[in-house]
Amino acid sequence: MGRKMFDLCGRDERLRFSPYCWRVKFALAHKGLDCEFVPWKFTDKEAIAFSDQSKVPVLVDGDQSVVDSYEIFRYLDRVYPDKPLLGDGPAAERARFFKFYAERSLAPGVMRTILMDVFNAVHPDDREYFRTTREKAFGRTLEEMHSPSQGLSMLDKALEPMRGRLEESPFLEGDEAGASDYLVVGAFMWARVASAADLISNADPVYAWFQRMLDLHGGIGRNATRIVDIDGGYAN
Amino acid sequence: MGRKMFDLCGRDERLRFSPYCWRVKFALAHKGLDCEFVPWKFTDKEAIAFSDQSKVPVLVDGDQSVVDSYEIFRYLDRVYPDKPLLGDGPAAERARFFKFYAERSLAPGVMRTILMDVFNAVHPDDREYFRTTREKAFGRTLEEMHSPSQGLSMLDKALEPMRGRLEESPFLEGDEAGASDYLVVGAFMWARVASAADLISNADPVYAWFQRMLDLHGGIGRNATRIVDIDGGYAN
Repeated sequence: MGRKMFDLCGRDERLRFSPYCWRVKFALAHKGLDCEFVPWKFTDKEAIAFSDQSKVPVLVDGDQSVVDSYEIFRYLDRVYPDKPLLGDGPAAERARFFKFYAERSLAPGVMRTILMDVFNAVHPDDREYFRTTREKAFGRTLEEMHSPSQGLSMLDKALEPMRGRLEESPFLEGDEAGASDYLVVGAFMWARVASAADLISNADPVYAWFQRMLDLHGGIGRNATRIVDIDGGYAN
Repeated sequence: MGRKMFDLCGRDERLRFSPYCWRVKFALAHKGLDCEFVPWKFTDKEAIAFSDQSKVPVLVDGDQSVVDSYEIFRYLDRVYPDKPLLGDGPAAERARFFKFYAERSLAPGVMRTILMDVFNAVHPDDREYFRTTREKAFGRTLEEMHSPSQGLSMLDKALEPMRGRLEESPFLEGDEAGASDYLVVGAFMWARVASAADLISNADPVYAWFQRMLDLHGGIGRNATRIVDIDGGYAN
């Protein structure tokens, strides 16, 4: 039986910008597992109703379905133990921190930098849903939350531990990329696909790391379609 | 032969506030290794000249001497492999991130909150050295750098990934404390010993974690003498 993952897409079906879906794409590639990536919109709740929840990524692997990017990492290690992602013992415990670092340190700064770009990139069917859910969560309008100057300043501070690590090592995981890199890279792919903003100076060790990440696994990151590749991508 | 560590002390010899020395004290206790902690002042460069550098911690273990808190963790794992600290493979690679998280995310906020308290806590012989070296590094006076409102705001943001992790787990390392906790705890012990400032609200999951850390290994953290325990500790 086949393997497929429901993958958030935007106004053009080739635009795939979900940071959580990107984690899983890197994880599958790390394991060498083929997968069909099924384009999915926020409002396609019916298509994933079988998963008893309403968010992607949803991985369907034969007769198994798994939701939540971190749970998918765990599932992949359990079912395909070669080339461990999280591993076990202290390795697995420490991996967990990178999830929170990505979601709570990096993502808020990226989000405030690219929010209106993401709003522009989502499918027209999803725009009202996106605006309503996000504005409720923020307690402000998208336009008020969008603040590249604040976002870049937040991101600059949040990147400090990555800079320290990447000044000494090509990847967070050492000489080769691993789960810690994949948990974090989603935030950067989100911006790369949905926005033309430059998040990081090219003198930053994080920039060099991201270039290496883009080239991994046959260049799945580098080859991803970007909003800037789409004709009229910036026309509303 | 005995084991001893040169340990920064303050105006009272019982005041031991170096965050780097605290890492090693927790690591030694984790391994169950006895150690004599030799009080040392910044200006006691002669006492550690044998180590070919001028900072503590310096661990002297029989005929070996090791400098740098992280190098001491590695040394302890190599020579005393029971109860690994860093471990190897991905566990060790991921541990390294916590060093940078502590030093580059947490420490700057703590430092700006307690800097004048640290200045007050250092030995009178060290005050001029402390002021001169720090002001040169900062490019500003101690008084200008000391800003609890800015420091606490920086720290509040920097704590986000810890909060996420500690909402689900008693320690960063999972059910039992380990190297990731010890690498981070030094920043909090620094403030606890040298300052009366409250860094974290007692509703914060990081607060509950620090209380658990204080009680570990016979309460080495909780029993540490604090500036507030010293008669006239706040008198200049």
